[in-house]
Amino acid sequence: MIAAMDVVGNPSSVHTEGRAAKMLVERARAQVAELVGCKTTQVIFTSSATEAAALAVAQKARHGGLFSALPTEHDCLGDWSEVALDPAQVGGGAIEGHHLRAVSAANSETGILGASGVVVGSTPHHSTVCDITQLAGKMPVIYGEVTPSYAILSAHKIGGPKGVGALINFTADDPVPMLRGGGQEMNRRSGTENTIGIAGFGAAAAAAGQDVAAGRWDEVAQLRNILEKTIAAATDQTIFVGKDRPRLPNTSCILTSGWKGETQVMQMDLAGFAISAGSACSSGKVKASKVLIAMGYSEAQASSAIRVSLGLETTKDDVLRFADAWIEKWTKHQMRVA
Amino acid sequence: MIAAMDVVGNPSSVHTEGRAAKMLVERARAQVAELVGCKTTQVIFTSSATEAAALAVAQKARHGGLFSALPTEHDCLGDWSEVALDPAQVGGGAIEGHHLRAVSAANSETGILGASGVVVGSTPHHSTVCDITQLAGKMPVIYGEVTPSYAILSAHKIGGPKGVGALINFTADDPVPMLRGGGQEMNRRSGTENTIGIAGFGAAAAAAGQDVAAGRWDEVAQLRNILEKTIAAATDQTIFVGKDRPRLPNTSCILTSGWKGETQVMQMDLAGFAISAGSACSSGKVKASKVLIAMGYSEAQASSAIRVSLGLETTKDDVLRFADAWIEKWTKHQMRVA
Repeated sequence: MIAAMDVVGNPSSVHTEGRAAKMLVERARAQVAELVGCKTTQVIFTSSATEAAALAVAQKARHGGLFSALPTEHDCLGDWSEVALDPAQVGGGAIEGHHLRAVSAANSETGILGASGVVVGSTPHHSTVCDITQLAGKMPVIYGEVTPSYAILSAHKIGGPKGVGALINFTADDPVPMLRGGGQEMNRRSGTENTIGIAGFGAAAAAAGQDVAAGRWDEVAQLRNILEKTIAAATDQTIFVGKDRPRLPNTSCILTSGWKGETQVMQMDLAGFAISAGSACSSGKVKASKVLIAMGYSEAQASSAIRVSLGLETTKDDVLRFADAWIEKWTKHQMRVA
Repeated sequence: MIAAMDVVGNPSSVHTEGRAAKMLVERARAQVAELVGCKTTQVIFTSSATEAAALAVAQKARHGGLFSALPTEHDCLGDWSEVALDPAQVGGGAIEGHHLRAVSAANSETGILGASGVVVGSTPHHSTVCDITQLAGKMPVIYGEVTPSYAILSAHKIGGPKGVGALINFTADDPVPMLRGGGQEMNRRSGTENTIGIAGFGAAAAAAGQDVAAGRWDEVAQLRNILEKTIAAATDQTIFVGKDRPRLPNTSCILTSGWKGETQVMQMDLAGFAISAGSACSSGKVKASKVLIAMGYSEAQASSAIRVSLGLETTKDDVLRFADAWIEKWTKHQMRVA
């Protein structure tokens, strides 16, 4: 990204400086395509997975006109849903006729995998938008027999910068653009390209692909399991959401009924740990996680949720210090309540 | 921006790292507000002026339901136009009833000012979207008696990074968002913030404001005039568009009928100069500039247009070397044609 700062040209300009900027964008496109397992022409750079989601939803007229999402989907897709899908309907066709639906490959709050780690595809009844934001860069991106119509992902979830994402268009048609003007991204998304951010997205995709291939996240899963076991050994009052289901290697969603998630975030912050209650982008809201409510947890359980995310740099010492700090604060909380 | 790369938090997170990211975004917001002369709450960060344009146009239902643009507007606004405004109608109300119209403060291809350098405001008949992308950072941003309803601008036109822009909302109502999800930008534009790019936008706005106040662009205008005089002294075959009208200090739009603008771009590139034919973002297109056609120039004149932009680092020597190279290539072109 620092090198890209010296590439001052506009990728749409035909002079030397413009061509250098164009090359930088196209190299990043190839790197993202490699990570996702798609053609370079299927990658449309956007400013976020959120923009990619809106762009996918804007294509619903081509897919039956109706858009639906599971209640556990991230708000960037869920907020567009016209019919809340029942999780039991995901495989079937409970809504009459063909429509566009959102099903994530891995949940953003719990890390639980949508379909055993395979990117959820389209079906005879559904064109699918699959949110691979959480999956990509942590597990191999593998497709079933049918690809989805669209996938969305974000750079900052794979180690890249915030403010860059992509729509992967698996359909034969170019999406109708939401942004008009200069005709960038092959007329699919106008606006001068975020060259520095895109360069970072590409570099992150290349690094993330190598890390996944090297099995580095398996070690992270071990650490996550140590974290959960250490906490479970100290108290039987916690639930680790999705513990017995296939889930991402780095996420632990912990419920401790009666102890507000937001309080835990602040207390752990004082201890030097950055965790989140619910998903970071909706943490300003005080409502209990709708994801957990949809999964059948009570209001009290859902509002106690914290999400602990481990990274490749997280050490066993970090994990044990976290568990110690959390147990200490939990013990104090119980004494206050008692 | 490099310092911002070390701010890893998500601005929506409440922990220490998140608050640091939030501070960075809010400092940039204050810097952009200072440059534009608006309240910080009126600044909505987007991924480009193009996205800001689309977001403004999406509000047209609140302004009479119809959107119009002058044929000289940048495509990010012009491509949404339902009724092409006649330049003569700009001050009046030739379209019945109230509607939303786009009028730029300075044209992106010619640098000609829309209303003597004042940001074009709303009228009893028009809610106005004023494109200040070219004006901001080169001239003071001054308002008439009435502000526009919206203004749009872009970081990379004031020395900041590509891929960041802003919608300035002067209306009393929050715009209906185009991007839904996490509720960032006070629920007006969802998507995790481009913290690095926004930091660059803010820093560029602060620097640009100082440069404008110091009159540094007056020196650039002198150099631009030297460029035009040197070329005019060598040939009477050129037209400098808007030479006798109020225009930006750094832009020269040169017509040399019979010599394709695209050819000039390539020839000047070989000589080490990056110029453009038309606007950079539409340079992939081979059509003659619709801006120039709308101004009454012929197809042959319009397709010969080049746009030469000077910067604060441009020297008199640069300008004279450019003029020499251009005159040499023009002379060779004439010999080939003759």
